[in-house]
Amino acid sequence: MIVDVLERLHAELPDRINTDAATLESLRTDRSGVRTAAAPLALIEAESIEDVQAVCRLATATGTPLVTRGAGSGLAGAASAGAGELVLSTERMNRILEISPENQYCVVEPGILNGDLNRELATRGLWWPPDPASKDFSTVGGNIAMNAGGLLCAKYGVTREAVLALKVVLANGGLIEVGHRTVKGVTGYDLCALMIGSEGTLGVIVEATLKLRPAVTGVVPTIGAYFDSITAAAEASAAITAAGLQPAIQELLDANMLRAVTAHTGVDLASNGNAYLLVQTDGAAALDEAQRILALFDELGARATLTTDPEAAASLVDVRRQGFPALEAMGAFLVEDCAVPRSRLAEMFGHIERIAAKYDVFIACPAHAGDGNLHPTFVFDGSTDEVPDHVWDAASEIFETALALGGTLSGEHGIGLLKRRWLGDELGQRQLDLQREIKRVFDPLGILNPGKVFPE
Amino acid sequence: MIVDVLERLHAELPDRINTDAATLESLRTDRSGVRTAAAPLALIEAESIEDVQAVCRLATATGTPLVTRGAGSGLAGAASAGAGELVLSTERMNRILEISPENQYCVVEPGILNGDLNRELATRGLWWPPDPASKDFSTVGGNIAMNAGGLLCAKYGVTREAVLALKVVLANGGLIEVGHRTVKGVTGYDLCALMIGSEGTLGVIVEATLKLRPAVTGVVPTIGAYFDSITAAAEASAAITAAGLQPAIQELLDANMLRAVTAHTGVDLASNGNAYLLVQTDGAAALDEAQRILALFDELGARATLTTDPEAAASLVDVRRQGFPALEAMGAFLVEDCAVPRSRLAEMFGHIERIAAKYDVFIACPAHAGDGNLHPTFVFDGSTDEVPDHVWDAASEIFETALALGGTLSGEHGIGLLKRRWLGDELGQRQLDLQREIKRVFDPLGILNPGKVFPE
Ligand SMILES: Cc1cc2nc3c(=O)[nH]c(=O)nc-3n(C[C@H](O)[C@H](O)[C@H](O)COP(=O)(O)OP(=O)(O)OC[C@H]3O[C@@H](n4cnc5c(N)ncnc54)[C@H](O)[C@@H]3O)c2cc1C
Ligand SMILES: Cc1cc2nc3c(=O)[nH]c(=O)nc-3n(C[C@H](O)[C@H](O)[C@H](O)COP(=O)(O)OP(=O)(O)OC[C@H]3O[C@@H](n4cnc5c(N)ncnc54)[C@H](O)[C@@H]3O)c2cc1C
Repeated sequence: MIVDVLERLHAELPDRINTDAATLESLRTDRSGVRTAAAPLALIEAESIEDVQAVCRLATATGTPLVTRGAGSGLAGAASAGAGELVLSTERMNRILEISPENQYCVVEPGILNGDLNRELATRGLWWPPDPASKDFSTVGGNIAMNAGGLLCAKYGVTREAVLALKVVLANGGLIEVGHRTVKGVTGYDLCALMIGSEGTLGVIVEATLKLRPAVTGVVPTIGAYFDSITAAAEASAAITAAGLQPAIQELLDANMLRAVTAHTGVDLASNGNAYLLVQTDGAAALDEAQRILALFDELGARATLTTDPEAAASLVDVRRQGFPALEAMGAFLVEDCAVPRSRLAEMFGHIERIAAKYDVFIACPAHAGDGNLHPTFVFDGSTDEVPDHVWDAASEIFETALALGGTLSGEHGIGLLKRRWLGDELGQRQLDLQREIKRVFDPLGILNPGKVFPE
Repeated sequence: MIVDVLERLHAELPDRINTDAATLESLRTDRSGVRTAAAPLALIEAESIEDVQAVCRLATATGTPLVTRGAGSGLAGAASAGAGELVLSTERMNRILEISPENQYCVVEPGILNGDLNRELATRGLWWPPDPASKDFSTVGGNIAMNAGGLLCAKYGVTREAVLALKVVLANGGLIEVGHRTVKGVTGYDLCALMIGSEGTLGVIVEATLKLRPAVTGVVPTIGAYFDSITAAAEASAAITAAGLQPAIQELLDANMLRAVTAHTGVDLASNGNAYLLVQTDGAAALDEAQRILALFDELGARATLTTDPEAAASLVDVRRQGFPALEAMGAFLVEDCAVPRSRLAEMFGHIERIAAKYDVFIACPAHAGDGNLHPTFVFDGSTDEVPDHVWDAASEIFETALALGGTLSGEHGIGLLKRRWLGDELGQRQLDLQREIKRVFDPLGILNPGKVFPE
């Protein structure tokens, strides 16, 4: 049977098949570092919709599992492939097919990198807002399949709000077009939204019509503010929202992040305070908004700097940017992801501190404060291949706490392999059953990214 | 069996059942005027989630069809109920359960009127953006079930972008919670988006967590501009978008609309030009944007007025507002709804003129120009109960033309009873089959709003 699939693939798509051992080995994981038990069968580098259809038909005919892969930058193991599986890469399908300034949309193949697309759009004064920190090394298809977030979501929305229509190849090779190229549209169920965030389990996204915005122009005032406590910083962030102000970026770092950056860079930030809030405003009222935020921060006892000078701004941003390299330098690490309603942010930070002490594990935590999305990051001895049990126990308690506060298991990194055992806790059994049935409607043989998202 | 349902309803929910003949008669239609063959069995005025669950359990146990009804303001016949059906009204479930300024969300029961909710929110400087022209007499639940649009969508999005989470009672009476109260969330498939626009066919929405924005403050400059042709006006609108400007409102009226308003009000607008474009800007850069738009219009040969005086603005807006009363005064009318990519708007207006001549029918057409959404409105002798065949033939050709231009059958009014025969033309057989299977996952007995959306 296995020989049969490979033979037939070689016969049908001769120059698209890669069975190089080192390549296959690399497909066992994504950027989460968590590895499957063995390497997949083959990598197929599709170049067209027809290629993808041919692969899906073959997978269906032979009952072979198929894992779609963008750039493999995921943090949930959603693209990790194992024994007996085929990997379908979209990386060669990376063309821009149309850019329409009048309609403010563009049509692209799924394998284009977010950063490459946005550089091209910028030359025309346009912009696709989804901005995961991985934008320079993640694909638009992967962003859509994970409903990627980023720094700008509170103001500009997540990927779901920036996709108009999709072409999707189904498990059996059939092609459907979902969504609308128009701004509005209500014709039957919204299968476009259903595909967004479906992590390769419902179909292969082979073309996307993306909703664009005019590029943001003008100064982007930047504020860096140190607070005595994470609670004070979280409250300052809540005060911004309550005042009806809408910054583009609100990034919060806790004391452990500041300590890590201090240790890594040798610049003593930790003695400035126990929390850091980075804020940027943009648009027509940017400067006015920034000044109002600065006044708010002053009132709340922060030590804050406001600048419109690009160099000074870069050094305020750098505090945040140094966070992950600093943690990486400390040992193996696991970046987690959960979200709570904005008003519960301070409380959630308190719980994380408590949980770190309880399980005796080092957790540093940056947050996209504007949308209540936290990334508790566990640092431990050893390798990411084998996250120690006490780390998972601590993570588990963090997820349960986020749910108890009215939040979610995953703000933006998705479920993949890493979080499937908690999915039922959030959805409840009744909804979980419905979701499984929807999966069966699209993929009756269960060959699309099996074992991902749903608990076994 | 029928006796059995009614008996059991009376036993379980004694003071919620209404079988008054005139009431039941009124439930045969919504605001489309299109009527089912006979009146439904009973109206149930639910007061709580438990009531809704009880009704659904009974409907399932007895195999009785159930039509959920908000305010009955729909224009697609989606809430029209017929022989042997139960109607579940949400109108008594109209409480606001929570307003959270820090989290910019509110939690409401489905039967609250959009206008009532927004008046309450306004007192706290908050706003729920969906703004169908029917907002004062349509429910939030109905807005969600239809994914309602309105005048402000190009800038502020449709209903789908303004809903965070829903509680839904399934056909069998089970309750699920879909979506997230947080701004971000990726945990399994997006069943919240699937419910939005599902026209009462997947479940009953019993509670909604809505995404709010700070109320827009400051002046709202208004421009009224007359053009020599609809093409010139549509091009002016496209030029606004191409210049990266984003007005809050862009309403376009064709020559027939201007003639109708002239006849109705006695004020000669028709001699001012053959098309009218109403534009409003808002936000921090409102006045600057308005001035740039005025300059654009002048360049394009329009006769345009810009004002920030409320009274002068009201008279510019009134030209648009008089449109429907003017058409109503002319005879029976059918308001249709389709959308095309913005750049094809001028072309679409040309086709509508051609089709009106071909079928010898009077069509006046307002459009939400910013999002390519047109409302071709057919005026004819007789009553809306029986739309003449040649009107449907003309409508049919308009829908096909919109699809051929890359558009959609319905920008915002939905499919309901009126458009189901064209749904397959837009979705294609393969997607239509998938959608039917999803319907079966939620509603295996087919008791929720049967005969709506899907062609028979
Ligand atoms: C340093 C770093 C920073 C990050 N920052 C962010 C962040 O700020 N926000 C955020 O949301 N994420 C972030 N991520 C996670 C990751 O980059 C995103 O999830 C990204 O969207 C994945 O894109 P990809 O092309 O790498 O997809 P992959 O990792 O290759 O695949 C991810 C999933 O998508 C599916 N998939 C990919 N392409 C398709 C397709 N065409 N059709 C169907 N399914 C498909 C795969 O099957 C898999 O389930 C970060 C990752 C790293 C390493
Ligand atoms: C003058 C006028 C102007 C209009 N302008 C606009 C406009 O600008 N934009 C626009 O989009 N529409 C517009 N409409 C159409 C209509 O008002 C909208 O579709 C509105 O959203 C319907 O709300 P409703 O409460 O009246 O719902 P109903 O008409 O009662 O029901 C509509 C559908 O929603 C379902 N439904 C209702 N409540 C629930 C619930 N709680 N759970 C599940 N399903 C439910 C029903 O089963 C039905 O399928 C207009 C209508 C009129 C008469």
